[in-house]
Amino acid sequence: MAVYTEVPDGELNTFLAQYDLGNVVACKGIAEGVENSNYLLRTTLGTYILTLYEKRVAREDLPFFLGLMEHLAAKGLSCPTPIHARDGQTLHELCGRPAVIVSFLEGMWPRRPTERHCQQLGAALADLHLKGRDFTLSRANALSLAGWQKLVEATKDRADEVEPGLGKVIVDELAFLNAHWPKDLEIGVIHADLFPDNVFFLNDRLSGLIDFYFACTDFLAYDLAVCLNAWCFEPDHSFNITKARLMVQAYQSVRPVPSVETAALPLLCRGSALRFLLTRLYDWLNHPPGAFVKPKDPREYLRKLRFHQGAASAGAYGIG
Amino acid sequence: MAVYTEVPDGELNTFLAQYDLGNVVACKGIAEGVENSNYLLRTTLGTYILTLYEKRVAREDLPFFLGLMEHLAAKGLSCPTPIHARDGQTLHELCGRPAVIVSFLEGMWPRRPTERHCQQLGAALADLHLKGRDFTLSRANALSLAGWQKLVEATKDRADEVEPGLGKVIVDELAFLNAHWPKDLEIGVIHADLFPDNVFFLNDRLSGLIDFYFACTDFLAYDLAVCLNAWCFEPDHSFNITKARLMVQAYQSVRPVPSVETAALPLLCRGSALRFLLTRLYDWLNHPPGAFVKPKDPREYLRKLRFHQGAASAGAYGIG
Repeated sequence: MAVYTEVPDGELNTFLAQYDLGNVVACKGIAEGVENSNYLLRTTLGTYILTLYEKRVAREDLPFFLGLMEHLAAKGLSCPTPIHARDGQTLHELCGRPAVIVSFLEGMWPRRPTERHCQQLGAALADLHLKGRDFTLSRANALSLAGWQKLVEATKDRADEVEPGLGKVIVDELAFLNAHWPKDLEIGVIHADLFPDNVFFLNDRLSGLIDFYFACTDFLAYDLAVCLNAWCFEPDHSFNITKARLMVQAYQSVRPVPSVETAALPLLCRGSALRFLLTRLYDWLNHPPGAFVKPKDPREYLRKLRFHQGAASAGAYGIG
Repeated sequence: MAVYTEVPDGELNTFLAQYDLGNVVACKGIAEGVENSNYLLRTTLGTYILTLYEKRVAREDLPFFLGLMEHLAAKGLSCPTPIHARDGQTLHELCGRPAVIVSFLEGMWPRRPTERHCQQLGAALADLHLKGRDFTLSRANALSLAGWQKLVEATKDRADEVEPGLGKVIVDELAFLNAHWPKDLEIGVIHADLFPDNVFFLNDRLSGLIDFYFACTDFLAYDLAVCLNAWCFEPDHSFNITKARLMVQAYQSVRPVPSVETAALPLLCRGSALRFLLTRLYDWLNHPPGAFVKPKDPREYLRKLRFHQGAASAGAYGIG
């Protein structure tokens, strides 16, 4: 939840005058996205999302993010499409910040993901991977091994404040992943943050994917590992093997998964669990007292990491 | 800015099924209102605001607030109208909280109010007062003398943390107002919180009034005093007498103001300034460190109070 930048009506009218989108009818800050300010913008011609990029998003990454959304939408993936102004550009300035208008996506994210949701998500993820294959820009994953190293350094000394022994767990896990991280899996565009709040459903059918601001170029199967972590654990922390099987099978029906990727899943799941454990831990230890955003509990991902450490093979996920 | 209650999609569908409003298309928490959770709700039939009442709004007051909005809207005032479900009721439960769906109002609130805005506001305020005359419910103003007394008690010992001498200022001012508060002015329904963020404009024309959750039965002229405080001071804290004159003249053109009310304006402005000084002071001293809502600076209203203390008559506001 975040609206950081207040947009005066006058500035908004001037900004919108660069587009062929009619006049402002209403503009309300919405509680979506934690990195940016998002507004639901109604004009005389339609409904859109106005996004102002706050400091946490690097300006030099915006062409990748915006280009990717446009590429995927042009190929028929349901996701927000940046709208071009009359100058042909999608990126402009508003209130001193980079700003875009993107298309509005109908649907709601599932607060309690079901098997059916997981299944549809698997197919949509594979579809994203296939449609991203001929996207020409690339962006390194800032939150892979090198990024984790930095986060471990920044958090290990205070990690035990959150849970005794956590500091040693993250140091050991990073050493293990450094030694065993796969090298020869297919690389391509991944979403890298496809949690339930980034996936919309309408009448129980997947209606679109949003929030491409962690998208990058990395192992396709790592994206599947992120989703297994984000979608297949129950509120009581147990792993739901049925959801996992349905998700992966649906993924496979769109993009067949080579056995080398299947075999790497436990490792990729450990990496993905460490990634979210570390970013949550960092935010937990560093959020300012008056911050709008309530930090998420890092221990949820410590439990998940422990589950994956005990997974001998992809069989633990109901696969193969 | 506030979304306190997370509404799961399943609960929302069940809730909406009580209405003839079609099916949910999208529902986004919006950064509006600090007392309630507000969602912009799109259905297959239209756009609405869904409000869940959090603890700060007393459940027993809801029939007054909802009845008033319905009464005013029926008389042609542009304000949110509670939508009736098929059972004939407007108030239901969602996620364990009282909840209503109200009509959506187009427009944006003015971040930099102009003379033209102030003028239109004056006319709209008088229109509200006239249309409220035959509303049959009443509600005492919890934030008049008795309420201020409680807030002075709760804040006076720590007031000097905000500004040296502030504790004495509020105690003395309350004593003065207790001795001089008017008794014989016309009483009726007032909005009592008509700040710029509660007034929408579309293409520079006033398009509606929102947020009736401080509405109550009190002196009509007190509402004008609230608006003089909220609209007619500039960012540099100076009083803009032109805005005040335009606002009051426009008000008078709709509802003539008896001279007894005009004469009471300096006093009513002092009372209104003390009211917002006290609530802001209370929130400033008592907001929890991790609160979503950043408290507003009480000293803004200390400056306004001092201005009104120096006003000998309504002439200080460009009136009469």
